[in-house]
Amino acid sequence: MAKIGVCLSGCGVNDGSEIHESVITALTLDRAGAEIIYTAPDVVQTKVVNHLTGDEMNEIRNVLVESARIARGEITDLAQLTSDDMDALLFPGGFGAALNLCDFALKGADCYIHPEVKRIIQEMLAAQKPLGFICIAPALFARAVKNADMTAKITIGNDRATADQIEKLGSQHEICSVDDCIVDEENKIVSTPAYMLAGNISEAASGIEKLVHQIMKWV
Amino acid sequence: MAKIGVCLSGCGVNDGSEIHESVITALTLDRAGAEIIYTAPDVVQTKVVNHLTGDEMNEIRNVLVESARIARGEITDLAQLTSDDMDALLFPGGFGAALNLCDFALKGADCYIHPEVKRIIQEMLAAQKPLGFICIAPALFARAVKNADMTAKITIGNDRATADQIEKLGSQHEICSVDDCIVDEENKIVSTPAYMLAGNISEAASGIEKLVHQIMKWV
Repeated sequence: MAKIGVCLSGCGVNDGSEIHESVITALTLDRAGAEIIYTAPDVVQTKVVNHLTGDEMNEIRNVLVESARIARGEITDLAQLTSDDMDALLFPGGFGAALNLCDFALKGADCYIHPEVKRIIQEMLAAQKPLGFICIAPALFARAVKNADMTAKITIGNDRATADQIEKLGSQHEICSVDDCIVDEENKIVSTPAYMLAGNISEAASGIEKLVHQIMKWV
Repeated sequence: MAKIGVCLSGCGVNDGSEIHESVITALTLDRAGAEIIYTAPDVVQTKVVNHLTGDEMNEIRNVLVESARIARGEITDLAQLTSDDMDALLFPGGFGAALNLCDFALKGADCYIHPEVKRIIQEMLAAQKPLGFICIAPALFARAVKNADMTAKITIGNDRATADQIEKLGSQHEICSVDDCIVDEENKIVSTPAYMLAGNISEAASGIEKLVHQIMKWV
């Protein structure tokens, strides 16, 4: 049974993991026969957003604790996992990926990346194990390999300004439709736009399902 | 295009809506061509649970605000909706359904029910519009029709103690497997056990998909 990591970044599109993307990823993995290893870094969220009003809330929440909501409690601190623990690793999107796992949403190509996120991506690459990135999460990949001697193909859909920042980090951006994914066979990297482009949950699901099936083909 | 209400109770299995059940419900509705009307009551959660440790947290969260995470912000206060606004109404499970929408998890058959939840269920019944209840949510139905002159068939799976409390409220409990649902054709009520029995997300999905398809057949 393939063990597939799913790295979350909180619970909610505006300050954490995009919930639909995370659950569709889990459902597709489970139906494909994979064992899911939920993980997240043990770090305070950059902010807490009231998803009803869009306003920032005067609260402090922890990424690992809130991610545990999506994982139904079965989640491991990313610091306790290595590439030996999984056959592939996926990153759903949501602002959490670009606020908590890195701060690409605030700084673009000048962003910081959480050290455990950088470490696990680099370990997976070194072990030649597949990586999947959904929505804005490809920015994590680009930042993690910023100074590495590789040019991987990734997508965040078709937003030119965001793609420019990705390319500034040294990755190659390819335009992709919502129901498709970009496959980098050489580096075993797959990415899909999901809610970067999706107008509804079915559209998001169409690309995520392709991404997961590509991951399962590799492992 | 059928308008289907999805009434949430927070965001997380231990103090709100079960996230997988809610997203699978939304995905199946969207793929079936329905327009989803997310709603929740504007009320403080009974408690806030740390989903990593299971401990209660010293925090105050609002059911409508947290439910908005699952709804990506597109959610309406239940007090602002009537049965005219939707063709059917579904209730995902999670402890929120039995802690925030009613307190069946604490009081069993002696439970309170949120007045707006009771009102909308009774309105839907009066309008002969279908209702769907997932996981522990059938307790809401039983409580809402406690003193009504009707005996509907519902299921929460096979837990005898829980079923006894449902029957004490005057509803008829039927044992149901995780991949199936109980259909009450006369009253247009459908229910499925989901995570009352499911060992994984695919099992939960199998029953929820049947439930949603039954709802779409009726509308």
